[in-house]
Amino acid sequence: MRIIRSVSEMQQTALALRAAGKRLGCVPTMGFLHAGHLSLVALARERSDVVTLTLFINPTQFGPQEDLAKYPRDFERDAGLCRDAGVDILFAPVAAEMYAAGASSYVTEEKLSTGLCGAARPGHFRGVCTVVAKLFNLCLPHVAVFGAKDAQQLRVIRRMTRDLNFPVAIVAGPTLREADGLAMSSRNTYLNADERRQALVLKRALDEAAHLFDAGERAAAPLKSAMEKIITSAPAAKMDYIAIVDDETLAPVERLERPALIALAVFIGQTRLIDNVVLRSSPVTPKVRP
Amino acid sequence: MRIIRSVSEMQQTALALRAAGKRLGCVPTMGFLHAGHLSLVALARERSDVVTLTLFINPTQFGPQEDLAKYPRDFERDAGLCRDAGVDILFAPVAAEMYAAGASSYVTEEKLSTGLCGAARPGHFRGVCTVVAKLFNLCLPHVAVFGAKDAQQLRVIRRMTRDLNFPVAIVAGPTLREADGLAMSSRNTYLNADERRQALVLKRALDEAAHLFDAGERAAAPLKSAMEKIITSAPAAKMDYIAIVDDETLAPVERLERPALIALAVFIGQTRLIDNVVLRSSPVTPKVRP
Repeated sequence: MRIIRSVSEMQQTALALRAAGKRLGCVPTMGFLHAGHLSLVALARERSDVVTLTLFINPTQFGPQEDLAKYPRDFERDAGLCRDAGVDILFAPVAAEMYAAGASSYVTEEKLSTGLCGAARPGHFRGVCTVVAKLFNLCLPHVAVFGAKDAQQLRVIRRMTRDLNFPVAIVAGPTLREADGLAMSSRNTYLNADERRQALVLKRALDEAAHLFDAGERAAAPLKSAMEKIITSAPAAKMDYIAIVDDETLAPVERLERPALIALAVFIGQTRLIDNVVLRSSPVTPKVRP
Repeated sequence: MRIIRSVSEMQQTALALRAAGKRLGCVPTMGFLHAGHLSLVALARERSDVVTLTLFINPTQFGPQEDLAKYPRDFERDAGLCRDAGVDILFAPVAAEMYAAGASSYVTEEKLSTGLCGAARPGHFRGVCTVVAKLFNLCLPHVAVFGAKDAQQLRVIRRMTRDLNFPVAIVAGPTLREADGLAMSSRNTYLNADERRQALVLKRALDEAAHLFDAGERAAAPLKSAMEKIITSAPAAKMDYIAIVDDETLAPVERLERPALIALAVFIGQTRLIDNVVLRSSPVTPKVRP
């Protein structure tokens, strides 16, 4: 595995690999890798000759009150996991290389990014879109893999990729969960034992919504109430939002007729966790002749 | 010469050419070509194997009160000029292909684009940056050539290309002028005979500034007054702006110690014309031994 720190070396390497006819896969991450990230590497691996994992804690997607400084870091451990997972290139640029002094250009998405986490974290998706555009231009992937856990991010990046015509196929990797259902996240390491137990309310709330939906409920309000009841049962939990939105437009829906995304963000103590589920009516299965 | 109308065909063609090891040059234009554009083609030709000229009157860079509807168009003439100039691919997408319904992603530059034409034309450079980013992703050029006549645009695009790490070398083509000094522009066709004569005040004002500078004047204010005097001598002229700015930061300067850009925009009748000059002190020539 090759470790690249230099922005220009990464781009020259990607150009040379492309010139040699290689198909390039890319998995953008902020490091402190867990099995969820490694499942994205496996998806990239299946779809490309050379897999680059990018490890960059992007300062521009953190708000001033957020956890940039304390975001967990362990480069040696991450590099070991990448090696074991068959990553070919670990691209870990330093921030001074990524953002030139006086950088003044940004990529924005102005529809999908306004609600949900975008409402709670102004500037977040501008930071995400900008750094992803930069990583696309540096790593020149044919395919890039993002986790479905970051539901809004995935949709914003898909939209941005389409709107700006980046020649990159976006692949979504399903959310990986701990044995008890908690969605894997680097931020889970912030939780103490008690918070860790209480954090299960996110998944329990989503399961309850899915259960009601499967039982035929199509109105958003009762799903939301049922979820709120579960979240607020945890004393350490503070609701950021529960959103029930159209899966394509991310506009709030009152009834779940088309595929709907239920996304939520909850503070457990000081730690902000997110999770989501997409609910869609099962297609009517045609009778199969015996 | 191949004419491409489809966005996906352009990108597939560019990918195939790159895979075949070709070096790609690109000249983005809004059509109604003149000798200035063709000089950019020649610069692209020198630097690449395959030259694509893009012809797209980009609606997002026109303000609601501007001349989008009446912007001059003559596709057959343009195609003929491209053929004669040795353009390999004429990429002329239709707007509905370039902007998907519901497009919501933009590229912005927030420092260099705020003054000068950016102040007079809000949203203009967002439109320019967005379409140039899209054209880069569709045409995948190694080198792209822009005219120095659009001084601020050139600097904004250079900055955007650097900040977002596009693997594209930006080359500037010098301003071409009519025999009497008027900078070539597709918009010159708007001028009637009388306006055409009066339009010479732009170049005369820049020449006067350069003359004063060469005579040792380094204060911006007297240069500006001298230019204003010349511009206002033309009855059809209405000043938009005269800017004397640092050539790198585009911040206004009071003294021209470092290379300075003098840019101006003037309405001649209904037609908004721009022109510019860069003034820099001649380096002290070391004495050459006989």
